[in-house]
Amino acid sequence: MPKISRRGVLLPPSPIRKLVPYAEAAKRRGTEVLHLNIGQPDIETPVGAVEAVKNIKDKIFEYQHSAGNELYRRKLADYYDRMGIEVGHEDILVTTGGSEAIFMAMCVCMNPGDEVLVPEPFYANYNGFAMEAGVNIKPIFSTIDNDFALPPISEFERHITPYTKAIFICNPNNPTGYLYSRGELNQLRDIVLKYDLYLICDEVYREFCYDGREHLSVMNLDGAVTRNVIMIDSVSKRYSMCGVRLGALVTRNRDVIDAALKMGQARLCPPLLAQVAAMAAIDTPEEYFREVHDEYQRRRDCVVEALNRIEGVYCPTPRGAFYSMVRLPIDSSDRFAQWMLEEFSYNGRTVMLAPGTGFYASRGLGHNEVRVAYVLNCEKLLAAVECIREGLKVYPGRTTR
Amino acid sequence: MPKISRRGVLLPPSPIRKLVPYAEAAKRRGTEVLHLNIGQPDIETPVGAVEAVKNIKDKIFEYQHSAGNELYRRKLADYYDRMGIEVGHEDILVTTGGSEAIFMAMCVCMNPGDEVLVPEPFYANYNGFAMEAGVNIKPIFSTIDNDFALPPISEFERHITPYTKAIFICNPNNPTGYLYSRGELNQLRDIVLKYDLYLICDEVYREFCYDGREHLSVMNLDGAVTRNVIMIDSVSKRYSMCGVRLGALVTRNRDVIDAALKMGQARLCPPLLAQVAAMAAIDTPEEYFREVHDEYQRRRDCVVEALNRIEGVYCPTPRGAFYSMVRLPIDSSDRFAQWMLEEFSYNGRTVMLAPGTGFYASRGLGHNEVRVAYVLNCEKLLAAVECIREGLKVYPGRTTR
Repeated sequence: MPKISRRGVLLPPSPIRKLVPYAEAAKRRGTEVLHLNIGQPDIETPVGAVEAVKNIKDKIFEYQHSAGNELYRRKLADYYDRMGIEVGHEDILVTTGGSEAIFMAMCVCMNPGDEVLVPEPFYANYNGFAMEAGVNIKPIFSTIDNDFALPPISEFERHITPYTKAIFICNPNNPTGYLYSRGELNQLRDIVLKYDLYLICDEVYREFCYDGREHLSVMNLDGAVTRNVIMIDSVSKRYSMCGVRLGALVTRNRDVIDAALKMGQARLCPPLLAQVAAMAAIDTPEEYFREVHDEYQRRRDCVVEALNRIEGVYCPTPRGAFYSMVRLPIDSSDRFAQWMLEEFSYNGRTVMLAPGTGFYASRGLGHNEVRVAYVLNCEKLLAAVECIREGLKVYPGRTTR
Repeated sequence: MPKISRRGVLLPPSPIRKLVPYAEAAKRRGTEVLHLNIGQPDIETPVGAVEAVKNIKDKIFEYQHSAGNELYRRKLADYYDRMGIEVGHEDILVTTGGSEAIFMAMCVCMNPGDEVLVPEPFYANYNGFAMEAGVNIKPIFSTIDNDFALPPISEFERHITPYTKAIFICNPNNPTGYLYSRGELNQLRDIVLKYDLYLICDEVYREFCYDGREHLSVMNLDGAVTRNVIMIDSVSKRYSMCGVRLGALVTRNRDVIDAALKMGQARLCPPLLAQVAAMAAIDTPEEYFREVHDEYQRRRDCVVEALNRIEGVYCPTPRGAFYSMVRLPIDSSDRFAQWMLEEFSYNGRTVMLAPGTGFYASRGLGHNEVRVAYVLNCEKLLAAVECIREGLKVYPGRTTR
């Protein structure tokens, strides 16, 4: 029997999904599991997008343009324009989810063996794409002690080698909820210019910024950085349609777009029905976003306040996205998350959490942190926090901190 | 400005799509372009699939299971069962098109630098996936002189090195239309067992076999080959829904499925709406396939007969899929295809062909061959052949053969 490849062995399993069997067992025992572990919003997809799919006129679900339908790209460019990002439809490659855009960016910007600097904790799936692309992620430690602000630029410089080709950030950040300031982004701009690196920014949570703060896209950095910058986008969170799988790679660097398009041609096209939904979603009334925004801000306030009231727990106040990395007084976030599902319930309920370790590339980090996604309503979020509070009281691996 | 990666430079552009600007220019001049270049059928998607999309009940287009919805996988396993292929739903990983299944199989079976033997001519996009996976394709020459039958097994053996990890075939074949016999497949079985290789088979044209011939899946080879075998599948051609992007990687080798699932988790899930369409498509009445089959067989007969009546032209009779590699009396298939679009028309019409060179990895092959896709009705096909006939009369690069 032939062996599978080294990357097949080494590819990281999803740090979240490995807990799924325990959650399923808990449900079979009759325990309600409150899912704080995944970024699947409970918000309805805009009605216009759903209706567009229902009203589809095509009799043949045909191949589409490899770069995405031109009409959709033009409309997407208009949307970016409304968001203050000036790009033409020719600067956009429509992808199968933001996921594919990340993988393409890695393949096109880096050779196997090259290095990309990523502030950690970071979205766990970057690991998978990096491994598929043969690229090495060099994590730059950011700390909960300053709510996961951008690490000092000297830390980035210290890790730059001849193999370093890019800096990859997520803004607003998954998993920390941190929103980078103009000052921080300008620091990154200076360093990518100085060392001639790419700056790749995952901006799929653009719409989710709180407390009146504004999102600054890497596409809008001042200075001669235009060709260094690649924006990753997705319709998943913006329109709560994670399942359609549609994203985009956006850059004014023609070489990058042309090379990525060759990858796009190999896989033929992004999904047609997703483009139908997304095309209509762009016309979603402002009111939808206002409501969703306010709802998330309420949820954030709810969960952050309640968590911080538990002794030994610290939850930074996220300024964007709908996640927070939370410090808990525990020995191991993996053991705690599993224990909550396997051994614990409170009033017939328990909570599924994403262990912090999955978001760090450096060994030994994240053991006392979990990622919380506030994608449930306040009532459920408070019930979940209650479970965490009661769980911590009896968890055998509780630490004194 | 940072450079793009070597693979970004080397990735092959689509051999077909590079002709698109010439086709567009011809259309602007008022010339009707008959497209024999692409595998986009003009057959309608089954009504049941379209209706299922129109009747979707979901209010949130949510993430799905990374392996594909269990219900869909179970139904797909039933479909395979009806096709005489016994697999469980746990042997199936649902992918974003057959494309993703090919890329996953390459990544999971092979390390960067490993080699895969592929009979040439082959589907041009295998090149792109191989390059993305860092895998080297070693072409094994098959010849139009015996209608592209499996090359002698000694040719495969001659090319096996310590880096050889797999043999990759497409059956029925794109671009040749060749249908491998049980004898040929048994030869491949013996050699993969002897050298402990994977046998990966792209079977997306399974439904399109003519003259009463039966398709033999690699999943049904006798002998202890079970764990060496991976089947690539797609709903694109079967249900004429190329645009939905849904395929499958099927194998009884658990290690392969587990590793591929980790890649699947990184990209989260295959598209939801595609699964809705495909789920319903499985219930398409037998009559649809009979009609489609008969229509394609008619078209094949039409185009093969007409082409072979042109002096100096040879078109093998394909036994499956809806392509044929055709030998023409020309100096260069690239120049001829471009010339037909740029310089030629007959009765206000011209033809877009796929140059043969794009389907060969060996330099210097395919210059006097083009791929013809018979995805138009007989009337249009005959008009297209007429254009080719008249074009050959005046093409400056005509050869005497």
